[in-house]
Amino acid sequence: MSLRLGILGATGLVGRTMLALLDERDFPVDELRLLASGRSEERTLRFRGSEVAVLPVSAEAFAGLDGVLSAVSNPLAEEWVPVARAAGAVVVDNSSAFRYVAAVPLVIPEVNGALLAERPGLIANPNCSTIGIVMALAPLARAARLLQLVVSTYQSVSGAGSEALEELERGVRAGLERDPPARADGTPPFAFNVIPRIDRFEANGYTREEMKVVWETRKILGLPALPVVCSAVRVPVRIGHGAAVHAVFDRPIPPSEARALWAAFPGMEVVDDPARGLFPTPLASAGRDEVLVGRARPDLDDARGLEFFVCSDNLRKGAALNAVQIVERRFGVEPPAPRKARPA
Amino acid sequence: MSLRLGILGATGLVGRTMLALLDERDFPVDELRLLASGRSEERTLRFRGSEVAVLPVSAEAFAGLDGVLSAVSNPLAEEWVPVARAAGAVVVDNSSAFRYVAAVPLVIPEVNGALLAERPGLIANPNCSTIGIVMALAPLARAARLLQLVVSTYQSVSGAGSEALEELERGVRAGLERDPPARADGTPPFAFNVIPRIDRFEANGYTREEMKVVWETRKILGLPALPVVCSAVRVPVRIGHGAAVHAVFDRPIPPSEARALWAAFPGMEVVDDPARGLFPTPLASAGRDEVLVGRARPDLDDARGLEFFVCSDNLRKGAALNAVQIVERRFGVEPPAPRKARPA
Repeated sequence: MSLRLGILGATGLVGRTMLALLDERDFPVDELRLLASGRSEERTLRFRGSEVAVLPVSAEAFAGLDGVLSAVSNPLAEEWVPVARAAGAVVVDNSSAFRYVAAVPLVIPEVNGALLAERPGLIANPNCSTIGIVMALAPLARAARLLQLVVSTYQSVSGAGSEALEELERGVRAGLERDPPARADGTPPFAFNVIPRIDRFEANGYTREEMKVVWETRKILGLPALPVVCSAVRVPVRIGHGAAVHAVFDRPIPPSEARALWAAFPGMEVVDDPARGLFPTPLASAGRDEVLVGRARPDLDDARGLEFFVCSDNLRKGAALNAVQIVERRFGVEPPAPRKARPA
Repeated sequence: MSLRLGILGATGLVGRTMLALLDERDFPVDELRLLASGRSEERTLRFRGSEVAVLPVSAEAFAGLDGVLSAVSNPLAEEWVPVARAAGAVVVDNSSAFRYVAAVPLVIPEVNGALLAERPGLIANPNCSTIGIVMALAPLARAARLLQLVVSTYQSVSGAGSEALEELERGVRAGLERDPPARADGTPPFAFNVIPRIDRFEANGYTREEMKVVWETRKILGLPALPVVCSAVRVPVRIGHGAAVHAVFDRPIPPSEARALWAAFPGMEVVDDPARGLFPTPLASAGRDEVLVGRARPDLDDARGLEFFVCSDNLRKGAALNAVQIVERRFGVEPPAPRKARPA
């Protein structure tokens, strides 16, 4: 089994991480085609010791591909994903353009990977914050009925792309001696600040990012009526999204049971030992494949409530890794053994 | 009316802010005595154009003072607040040592300042995060019955004191080119990271900081049985605490009503206009006296739920300003007209 694979949006933060993961995971690639929109200035990217040309995306560029990992913005995904599909490629799309189409499965392999057995041609990759939160919820929601969620996120700047990350770096340097300046678009700086607005505002007062967490949590967990409220907040972190989760179930889940459920769930790592001062942080999750979870504690007023904090690398499990895992499972490629150590 | 005032802990971040505020507010000071523990290296601090000596704290140092603003740690407060009281001074204490004593009023002047009419000798100044959150809740809790709270904080590093702030600065500089190193005590760095642990762990799995928000919100609002859960999280911001608040009332409070209630409440400023991209940030709150509130939106699944985001300067309203306002009201000193602009 060896695949002809394309990466659409190969030069972005998520595209580059997809490329790195295919290498790390010894993914059996027969041909790798790197595609980017005309905007990209990159001409080649390194893969397994050779320079691979970055081609401008076109209808012809998808010919003969078995699968396409798409990591472009919604407008580009809306334009090119149907073209890739028409060319016969299975597409895993990281944009939100198709996530809310009922017929398109929205997949976290560890949670609802069974949907891939139906061999869908288009699979949507969920929102970066949602993946970490739902990974932590899934084993609990199998053990008890999930009734309600209140989520506050602590999202890193890489989630907004490479230009935003460069703005964070510039802002931090400019902010070493005085207040950091506003961003290029006039909005408040990322550096030394917290931005309680991610993506555009919807008419209901929520941001699009907050609604993504609501809609996608419901769809992936198969709980279409689950009450969910989210506050999505950007913090001056490079890589690694955190979330404080308040989850109410139909019975108490003691922290010890929650930790055991998480520890038994693939892709999760429990970092939760108050006596030793251990808790998850975004920085510790950066470069890791596992979702880190900890700070498990009961709601003191309602024993059915459980509080916890979850962190994950938004470029890896929050985006590129989850997409590569979908391709592996969709095509029956054996995944590598879990890699517990942080890469050098 | 002119007072003989002492500042205990005058050389710390909160003590210095108290000093600055007495000047800014033209507080009528007959004598100002600056006291510090033996640890402090400062010899003098500038006040209204002259250098004022910093004296080592002692029983004699409180003699003749009308009031003492105390901004020292719990152990020092436990040692010296009773001494200051015995010397006849009214003490406003910013530590948490006396906050949970039933007989000690815990005061935010705009919320429960009426307690000062009884002329208490010891008044506790609330926790820095709690003040901003309760300022935003108070006008709503007068208009409807508050039933439940879920709070996630985004707390700046200055809340941990000047040494922590220096560690943030060093960490940011060291982290410009690579991952920031661990803190001096081996715990994860503040820089480019998020720390879901503030203060020590309690036996129930919560941190002391989280329990402060629970206990103090109940005490100040006079709702001893209010269900409150809190996740207290440190973010790499210098000054300005944020909080994402999920509040459930006994009736729907539409965002328009919430904004009107906040706008009419002293010390609050509404920054909430999605159409113009306006929302509060910690950076915008730094140096401001007002608590900034915005992102008001209804819980989409339970109309009695209201979400919002609140930011305030943790050294000013979160600590020193609130303490100075308590002294003003306790002694009948006329406060200055609200200062809406940011100081130069």
